[in-house]
Amino acid sequence: MHPARIIARKRDGHELACGEIDDFLHGFAQGSIPDYQMAALAMAIFLRGMTTEETAALTDAMLTSGVRMEWPDDGRPVVDKHSSGGIGDKTSLILAPLLAACGMRVPMISGRGLGPTGGTLDKLESIPGFRTDLSLGEIHETVGRVGCVITGASAEIAPADRKLYALRDVTATVPSIPLITASIMSKKLAESLDALVLDVKFGSGAFMKHIDVARKLARSLVATGQRMGVRTTALLTDMNQPLGRMAGNLVEVHESLACLRGEGPADLWECTRALAAELLIGTRGSGLGDREGEAPAEPEKLLDDAISSGRALAKFAEMVAAQGGDLDRLSPMPAGTDVIADRSGFVSAIDAEALGHAIIELGGGRKVMTDRIDHAVGLEMLIRLGDEVRAGQPLVRLFGSPDQVAHLPPHLAATISLADEPPSLLPLIAERIE
Amino acid sequence: MHPARIIARKRDGHELACGEIDDFLHGFAQGSIPDYQMAALAMAIFLRGMTTEETAALTDAMLTSGVRMEWPDDGRPVVDKHSSGGIGDKTSLILAPLLAACGMRVPMISGRGLGPTGGTLDKLESIPGFRTDLSLGEIHETVGRVGCVITGASAEIAPADRKLYALRDVTATVPSIPLITASIMSKKLAESLDALVLDVKFGSGAFMKHIDVARKLARSLVATGQRMGVRTTALLTDMNQPLGRMAGNLVEVHESLACLRGEGPADLWECTRALAAELLIGTRGSGLGDREGEAPAEPEKLLDDAISSGRALAKFAEMVAAQGGDLDRLSPMPAGTDVIADRSGFVSAIDAEALGHAIIELGGGRKVMTDRIDHAVGLEMLIRLGDEVRAGQPLVRLFGSPDQVAHLPPHLAATISLADEPPSLLPLIAERIE
Repeated sequence: MHPARIIARKRDGHELACGEIDDFLHGFAQGSIPDYQMAALAMAIFLRGMTTEETAALTDAMLTSGVRMEWPDDGRPVVDKHSSGGIGDKTSLILAPLLAACGMRVPMISGRGLGPTGGTLDKLESIPGFRTDLSLGEIHETVGRVGCVITGASAEIAPADRKLYALRDVTATVPSIPLITASIMSKKLAESLDALVLDVKFGSGAFMKHIDVARKLARSLVATGQRMGVRTTALLTDMNQPLGRMAGNLVEVHESLACLRGEGPADLWECTRALAAELLIGTRGSGLGDREGEAPAEPEKLLDDAISSGRALAKFAEMVAAQGGDLDRLSPMPAGTDVIADRSGFVSAIDAEALGHAIIELGGGRKVMTDRIDHAVGLEMLIRLGDEVRAGQPLVRLFGSPDQVAHLPPHLAATISLADEPPSLLPLIAERIE
Repeated sequence: MHPARIIARKRDGHELACGEIDDFLHGFAQGSIPDYQMAALAMAIFLRGMTTEETAALTDAMLTSGVRMEWPDDGRPVVDKHSSGGIGDKTSLILAPLLAACGMRVPMISGRGLGPTGGTLDKLESIPGFRTDLSLGEIHETVGRVGCVITGASAEIAPADRKLYALRDVTATVPSIPLITASIMSKKLAESLDALVLDVKFGSGAFMKHIDVARKLARSLVATGQRMGVRTTALLTDMNQPLGRMAGNLVEVHESLACLRGEGPADLWECTRALAAELLIGTRGSGLGDREGEAPAEPEKLLDDAISSGRALAKFAEMVAAQGGDLDRLSPMPAGTDVIADRSGFVSAIDAEALGHAIIELGGGRKVMTDRIDHAVGLEMLIRLGDEVRAGQPLVRLFGSPDQVAHLPPHLAATISLADEPPSLLPLIAERIE
């Protein structure tokens, strides 16, 4: 292998061979390719792009830099969901036990808060004792016994991705569709999945502000997953306002519990159920709900049953206990301070990213990786897009000490635009990509 | 400074501010910016380009990473030439003493062979004792006393360029016009020049095969030099056959001596004289040859006089002695082995690069940087483009031991194409860029 020649070929817009990508990435993971050559290649990939074939090879190289999970060949499907992240996005907390309650294995590897969006692991750590650092052995054992787990990536999973991500962060090569695709998919495919669904969010509270970019990423993720033999679909979902009412850590756990009891906000359940249904459809024929000779059950019905029967909630409690958490010691919902509308009108736009930054300011997220999180802070949306409000009506409830709230930037109300006319509303689930 | 943000701006095609470029490059030179960030920026520059303003800022940052030469303010112009390199290009050996004989200071910093083209320093080291590692103090002293010097870059000259060049070499970011421009110009402008001429070569024996690319580079070099306050012009010269008859090291010293005696090949003198004339014109009014009230002398006449009077040759001998060389101990021209035409016809094309590689095969150049050079090997062109030859007539004379010559790839004659019709010939000096 001649690394500079491989870099030059990508620089000049050529398609790299799978073997070239594999050699380069393994060399990088093992240290024989230095950071500066990987940085030059990453920038060339950023500016020249990659075909699906190349992206799949990159994903595979990162995946095979580490270990893959192994599951018994017992027909029980292994599934997972990945979200591109958004304010108030707590679907993972509901979806993993929900699908486990439907008989699936859900070995969910999650992440921490990134920029203004919260992280599933941070949210779960609001539960006293909850461990997010399970070993590979513990993941296998817990998924086998409980059906699901939500934990951080162990060091054995796609180490090349970890190394490359750290490098991309300091070389301005993060927002590249093939590099994002390989980073997401290498970790997810290390779970040895039968089906994967991607929740690709767009709007004011998502990394991608416009649906076009979200669609591009979704297509790349789906094509790469399919190319690698995993049934993969994606939903493009609207993130122009927080998902559900709660945003923060502890308050999102409370809202997830409400949703698992069948008492959550409609949008949160709609989104979670649609994502879960993709995985039921994706693994149809695996014997779940559709017995030989019977017509397959409607996936939505299976999911509604898992909630109404209390099985999904019980599964969540089981998972929490298996990961060392103690739900009995969960702090109650904190008291809040309301932000008041200074005029009347229809809610026409919500700057969800600014709300995410407000949570960080309160102490609920990190400005630098070493910051400690105050899990109790957060906010509750008291209105939704399209609502008619009157001057003096509360818009947002802030959770935090008076001192924390006093330190927020003024004019938080300005993150919610009020107009004389009602806005046209978008559907929550904008598109499905398969 | 936020290095990743600067990289991101260039990645997205924005123009960087001078201060950003300066901070980044000085950080790189001093080690606070790691190689991987410089590699990512270099690739972004490669693919996005740079404006003249940015290229000048990059040149200036590399230049000011080291020391600049300082010359007495006595009206004696300081000039130099840079060539993009070509087979048989020995103009530096003639031009430096020629201009010194015309009263100029020529503190010429030269390089070694690169790929198939020879290097001025390697050629001069054919002279026993000749030192190419003069200190900055020795450069100043010798130029002050003799008028010219030809030596390698001392470590104090543009250290950022040395560090960046090594990085570019392994990150596939060498053939970038702004990066090449800054590399060349930072070293040349560290000489504190009044005028600079660039010999940008194109054709089968040059790095740039097509005149369009050469023109782009020439324009970038000239614009950057002008932008930095140095009178800079460029000649685009044809390199579709070796310049002069000799290519190698020792044999090129012999040919340069012949040229300094007025007995060199016409093309070599034409090229050297045109380049030197640019510098006489560029520094006109500085009191050389055109005294108050007199019409300025024709530069070509001044140059011819310097040759015919023997002053240029004497200056060469003086320079060689000052740099420790002993011309009396110069090996005589070696014996040769002729390559014979296998058909009759007109010389229609010469693969000068292949001839350059043949010299490397003989041992006259390096395959890896640590190779030692056999100065005595080389070749002599016995024909030129357009010549009519007969089958059996010698085309090229190879200098090397029978063993060295036997190890050459067969069919060396195939590097010289013979056609039934005479080719149309191009002028040696194709264009002038100012």
